[in-house]
Amino acid sequence: MDWHEIRDPQDPELDRLAERYRLHPLHVEDCRHRHESAKIEESRGYIFTVLKIVTIEADGGISESDLDIFLGRDFIITVEDKNCPPARKILEQVRGAASGQRADQVFYRITDGVVDSYLPVLDHFNEVIDELEDQVLDRPTPDTLQRTFDTKRSLILLRRTLVNTRDVAGHLQRSESELIQREMWPFFRDVYDHVSRNLDLVETQRDLLTGALDIYLSSVANRTNQVMKVLTVLGTIALPALVISGIYGMNLKGLPWTGSPQGAMIVSGVMAATTVVLLVILRLMRWF
Amino acid sequence: MDWHEIRDPQDPELDRLAERYRLHPLHVEDCRHRHESAKIEESRGYIFTVLKIVTIEADGGISESDLDIFLGRDFIITVEDKNCPPARKILEQVRGAASGQRADQVFYRITDGVVDSYLPVLDHFNEVIDELEDQVLDRPTPDTLQRTFDTKRSLILLRRTLVNTRDVAGHLQRSESELIQREMWPFFRDVYDHVSRNLDLVETQRDLLTGALDIYLSSVANRTNQVMKVLTVLGTIALPALVISGIYGMNLKGLPWTGSPQGAMIVSGVMAATTVVLLVILRLMRWF
Amino acid sequence: MDWHEIRDPQDPELDRLAERYRLHPLHVEDCRHRHESAKIEESRGYIFTVLKIVTIEADGGISESDLDIFLGRDFIITVEDKNCPPARKILEQVRGAASGQRADQVFYRITDGVVDSYLPVLDHFNEVIDELEDQVLDRPTPDTLQRTFDTKRSLILLRRTLVNTRDVAGHLQRSESELIQREMWPFFRDVYDHVSRNLDLVETQRDLLTGALDIYLSSVANRTNQVMKVLTVLGTIALPALVISGIYGMNLKGLPWTGSPQGAMIVSGVMAATTVVLLVILRLMRWF
Amino acid sequence: MDWHEIRDPQDPELDRLAERYRLHPLHVEDCRHRHESAKIEESRGYIFTVLKIVTIEADGGISESDLDIFLGRDFIITVEDKNCPPARKILEQVRGAASGQRADQVFYRITDGVVDSYLPVLDHFNEVIDELEDQVLDRPTPDTLQRTFDTKRSLILLRRTLVNTRDVAGHLQRSESELIQREMWPFFRDVYDHVSRNLDLVETQRDLLTGALDIYLSSVANRTNQVMKVLTVLGTIALPALVISGIYGMNLKGLPWTGSPQGAMIVSGVMAATTVVLLVILRLMRWF
Amino acid sequence: MDWHEIRDPQDPELDRLAERYRLHPLHVEDCRHRHESAKIEESRGYIFTVLKIVTIEADGGISESDLDIFLGRDFIITVEDKNCPPARKILEQVRGAASGQRADQVFYRITDGVVDSYLPVLDHFNEVIDELEDQVLDRPTPDTLQRTFDTKRSLILLRRTLVNTRDVAGHLQRSESELIQREMWPFFRDVYDHVSRNLDLVETQRDLLTGALDIYLSSVANRTNQVMKVLTVLGTIALPALVISGIYGMNLKGLPWTGSPQGAMIVSGVMAATTVVLLVILRLMRWF
Repeated sequence: MDWHEIRDPQDPELDRLAERYRLHPLHVEDCRHRHESAKIEESRGYIFTVLKIVTIEADGGISESDLDIFLGRDFIITVEDKNCPPARKILEQVRGAASGQRADQVFYRITDGVVDSYLPVLDHFNEVIDELEDQVLDRPTPDTLQRTFDTKRSLILLRRTLVNTRDVAGHLQRSESELIQREMWPFFRDVYDHVSRNLDLVETQRDLLTGALDIYLSSVANRTNQVMKVLTVLGTIALPALVISGIYGMNLKGLPWTGSPQGAMIVSGVMAATTVVLLVILRLMRWF
Repeated sequence: MDWHEIRDPQDPELDRLAERYRLHPLHVEDCRHRHESAKIEESRGYIFTVLKIVTIEADGGISESDLDIFLGRDFIITVEDKNCPPARKILEQVRGAASGQRADQVFYRITDGVVDSYLPVLDHFNEVIDELEDQVLDRPTPDTLQRTFDTKRSLILLRRTLVNTRDVAGHLQRSESELIQREMWPFFRDVYDHVSRNLDLVETQRDLLTGALDIYLSSVANRTNQVMKVLTVLGTIALPALVISGIYGMNLKGLPWTGSPQGAMIVSGVMAATTVVLLVILRLMRWF
Repeated sequence: MDWHEIRDPQDPELDRLAERYRLHPLHVEDCRHRHESAKIEESRGYIFTVLKIVTIEADGGISESDLDIFLGRDFIITVEDKNCPPARKILEQVRGAASGQRADQVFYRITDGVVDSYLPVLDHFNEVIDELEDQVLDRPTPDTLQRTFDTKRSLILLRRTLVNTRDVAGHLQRSESELIQREMWPFFRDVYDHVSRNLDLVETQRDLLTGALDIYLSSVANRTNQVMKVLTVLGTIALPALVISGIYGMNLKGLPWTGSPQGAMIVSGVMAATTVVLLVILRLMRWF
Repeated sequence: MDWHEIRDPQDPELDRLAERYRLHPLHVEDCRHRHESAKIEESRGYIFTVLKIVTIEADGGISESDLDIFLGRDFIITVEDKNCPPARKILEQVRGAASGQRADQVFYRITDGVVDSYLPVLDHFNEVIDELEDQVLDRPTPDTLQRTFDTKRSLILLRRTLVNTRDVAGHLQRSESELIQREMWPFFRDVYDHVSRNLDLVETQRDLLTGALDIYLSSVANRTNQVMKVLTVLGTIALPALVISGIYGMNLKGLPWTGSPQGAMIVSGVMAATTVVLLVILRLMRWF
Repeated sequence: MDWHEIRDPQDPELDRLAERYRLHPLHVEDCRHRHESAKIEESRGYIFTVLKIVTIEADGGISESDLDIFLGRDFIITVEDKNCPPARKILEQVRGAASGQRADQVFYRITDGVVDSYLPVLDHFNEVIDELEDQVLDRPTPDTLQRTFDTKRSLILLRRTLVNTRDVAGHLQRSESELIQREMWPFFRDVYDHVSRNLDLVETQRDLLTGALDIYLSSVANRTNQVMKVLTVLGTIALPALVISGIYGMNLKGLPWTGSPQGAMIVSGVMAATTVVLLVILRLMRWF
């Protein structure tokens, strides 16, 4: 079994292989242009598969690169991105265990490796969402919104990739192609199960994130409500004092206690009493 | 009929059984790694099923553990989690009634027991949601939000498990496998009906919970609106008094009633009258 | 044709009939336990159907009870809840017209009667929703929220029952069973049409209710906005008066018009003018 | 070809036709009771179709009436509502071109006429939604909410009718019935295309309306935010003046500039300066 | 192979071609009336396809025009809109490479060109959404709402066109028609892949836009909350000063420090101290 590793899609070696194994021009073009969706296509003499490698970026977002695989009866061609350490790592691990194996066995190992590489990405999002959930309830800030938004965007991208990858695995699990021996079916079914479970997780994460946004809005509305109540209490405390002191500040005659030496104390007492009565009334009306 | 109970997935006995009954390595691996989704797979000579045991945690959340079952013509192997009293209880109950029964009959009883064990979990959530509904309308607090969120998360998990379990039951109900006698079909159909009904319930609960969150937001908005009206009324009461007393506090000449011995009383009367007129106007304009 | 009416599910007569007509133990158990979903199951020699009777409770909610029917070649067995006047009424009406009819004809009449009994329930909800719609726009209160929530809950339950009943009718309309003569097919199709139309109505009602909740939130937000504007206008009116009268109340020298006999009038005029200018500015800036 | 036009569903002529052409009693009942959904049913010797005529009411809502059609080999029976000018108009137009045509050709023309009559209704809603969109952004009022709600309700009804009509057209487009000649298939396919496009439009309109409601809420929230900022600015302007003039209004000794003839001017300057500083601080903190 | 280019749908040349190639009157009518949805219809002797050209308008919205194609064994007829430079450009490019090609090859190139022309439109929306996302978080304005709304409307239209175009491509990719040679299948599959990927992108963009609207609302709610807190702080700072200075402004006796030469300073100190205590209390209660 020959395994041709193309480490740069622009490598002219790919053209030589295309000629030798009679690869369809559209497939070679797919390798060259990159940014394909994960997909599988059965062609005369080989199966062409595009898988996606997902990497977490420094800023917490995700980036994707392509890994193209041509599976023939006795050959396998992998075309990876020029700078994609995760793809390199998966291929090297498979290469280490590949000696003496059939092409479809190697192909399974690569597929399995790619699907396994999604797990740390999902774990990363699990942590991010846990953190966001805590934040929206405790201290919702615009920055929380920004991160929620970014995470949502990443999950939308990730979901798309997983849906396509699941279709690829679903196709492989019941492929009638003679290039894949029947004994490999349970293994591809296993890959399918893994992708499905990953997809379930991403759906759950999206549900949780949507919920987090609803909670954010409710939480902020609640805090505004709290602040309003504080304002109302402050206003209630100030009101009688301001009104009564205003009245006693007028240059007019005829107000009680103006001659009394304890006048100010008496009137201040009236102010305090009015405030207390007002607070009690508001409380009884359940207005705060 | 032999029933092999493996109470610890790491037990080497499982390897011996795998060799004896020719269990597929991927299935043994599923037993060892746990945290599988509920699923069913027909293999040569046996049916492999993963069921999920759902337990309510002390904090009101749920946790899940696996119960793996290998059903053969004349044997059954159950692999349970190391510390999972509910699984133990179900198996012991089935064990008590298992003597003289066929493998598929025992298998049905285990499945039925697992599905029955979901009912208390659903009842638990029914109670939680009833309580939350009351809270969002009467006294919405951030803690209510927290609990709504946690319950939502649990229901998302529970729903996933029930969907997978329903697929298992649906598969069993029309299984063409010779390992399950036709007379068992109505019984597995009964299990399927139970899971479907459970799933209906969870969907209803999710709908209600989403509704509860909408109500929360509306309820808080309504309360803020109430508080705003109180503030407006307070402001309306204070305004004329403050403005008029301010004017009479100025060190200026030419204001009416400044010489009158009843001046303060007259002006206070004017303040009160203005306040009442203002309140009536706002009321007529339906502003509060 | 024999029609056996069991008016209490615990009646031992049911056991005798089960033995005589060889009813499946699971079906007898379904009759005894009640609270089944609407469903249909073809068994050897008979068709077992569970229908749901929906009643409007005094508090405006709905309650459901079971009506179980066994349809055989020349017999029909109905098992109703112990206290369920609507079920009784339907059965008595059918009984009045049943003489000389075949079992499948009687069965159709019962099904038709049950489905017809859903119409008043739907009309009830139509009225409730009309009322709620008016309330959310005119005078949204927490009580409106409570009723919206309760209605939503009832509709979720009703929808579930109708979906299951539609499945029952759909099954009957194309049943290959020899127990139902082909000439009855258009009649069961008619039942199916009725249930589908009912279901359409419930979906519409749910859509309207969800819309009502959105409107509630928007309506409250709008009212809060109105109240805020009133506050702003009040503040704008008060501001110049308070600031200017405050300045003239200071024990300081050097303010204009302090010696003028018309001083108070002039300054009051300045206050009024400032207020008007401020209001005009806010208006031009479209701030209220 | 005989075309029997029944202009009043209660007309006893319908019973005579039912006898002559052996119409199924359930279909005659459908004609009599009206308020059926659009549907198609193939019966022995004829096809029974219910179509819906949609009319825009004076208040902007929509009302629906039935148009029932029996299509036989050499006859067509139309049953219209007693007072439904649009149905009358369609039938008269078809009648004008019907001479010498086969029954299925006339039937196509009626169907086509009914589907064409939906276009002005859709145009009406397009205009209403355009208007609502402008309103929610420029000047959201409770009346806008009311109209949004009413439009939503109408669209829900219209959508239901179109879905059912599409099913009718879909059935006709591939009908194996010998009553419809194969050459008519492209024409019925054309009708199907029209209904599908109408349905697309209604879905788009519902999407836009839901969007309009979201925008309404956001728009009101935004305006409230604006009003709050105005309040804050007013408060900021007033605050230093009120506090400082309050302090200078106290009957206490020891304040600076009390003896100065320019005292009031100096202190007023301090007030103005404090206000400006406060506004600049708030601005820098991006609080308004 | 004859390629007839009709550059004005009203051109009588179309009638001549219709007669010559026996085109169905409904198809000619579709060309004349324009504003069809993208669709494909196999007729006797030719395949009729409607494709949509999407153009970005000056105001950022999109407009659509039709491109109708009749594909026969040895002819191709294209009918374009009178003024549609993008359609012209695509056809000219294909024309340049068309010499010596079969009709189905030319047809593929046109389809491919049309689908490729969607990419700049999608890129345009990507940029718009990126910009809107930044705006909703940083400085949400009513104008942002307006643009969000317009973009949503455009995406709804674009999605509809892409869904229909995908159906066309899906039909072509597995067409049994003898007009399309089997070797063209992978090429039409490639077109299908491109449209599907475009559709994925539009769905993602719609998700992001809906998310942006949620963020907008949350962001505005958050800002209102911020403004409320500023108001509360201002109120808290002012309150003690206003109340205490009001009390000392009363024409009453009995207040402390009235005789002291440092009275004003002492009382001002009390004011400041009270303000600080109040701020600390609010802070500790986490009210702002």
